Amino acid sequence: MTNKLKKNLPCDDNCPVKASLDLLSGKWTLMILFQINNNVMRYGELKRAVTGISEKMLIQELNKLVENKLVSKKAYPEIPPRVEYRLTELGMKTLPIVDKLAEFGQENLVHN
Amino acid sequence: MTNKLKKNLPCDDNCPVKASLDLLSGKWTLMILFQINNNVMRYGELKRAVTGISEKMLIQELNKLVENKLVSKKAYPEIPPRVEYRLTELGMKTLPIVDKLAEFGQENLVHN
Repeated sequence: MTNKLKKNLPCDDNCPVKASLDLLSGKWTLMILFQINNNVMRYGELKRAVTGISEKMLIQELNKLVENKLVSKKAYPEIPPRVEYRLTELGMKTLPIVDKLAEFGQENLVHN
Repeated sequence: MTNKLKKNLPCDDNCPVKASLDLLSGKWTLMILFQINNNVMRYGELKRAVTGISEKMLIQELNKLVENKLVSKKAYPEIPPRVEYRLTELGMKTLPIVDKLAEFGQENLVHN
């Protein structure tokens, strides 16, 4: 499929790989989608799950993901406030990409 | 598989998704791998194929890809000099990731 797409489509703004990367190529973007996965996650859980991300970067990334309709955010009017994140239908469709990243890392990079 | 990995592995330095993203998450990295694909490509061809990338960024990215053993570079002692790039065995293994990016973009982002 890669070859077919490559021959049919130049790598300009109509290139599907470029379109996906515009949305997903941030250092943390796919990692956050991977961590949310099929779960409903509170902000604090996500902060602990994505090791090494700063508070500022996580908030920025989550806002971008919500804006791009990959993640939905629900805030409950409680004290203390509870905010939950889950993948949208579109966000769920990124999981096969994450699966392939996981496979590649597992087979080639991580020492078991 | 995503779920299985998620439950088994925390997202620290042993996380396969993190390991893959450390190598591949640059804005242009997967795009360059996608363009080289199964081909042998000269520098000039690559420059034309990856629309919008600057000369400096392309050279920097190619050096990083060579250093990370995803791409091999062969320079021929000709006048003018000829430099060719192709994917290594490891680089070829990133193509399933690119395929999924292409699928996601094709189905959800690009207007046909």
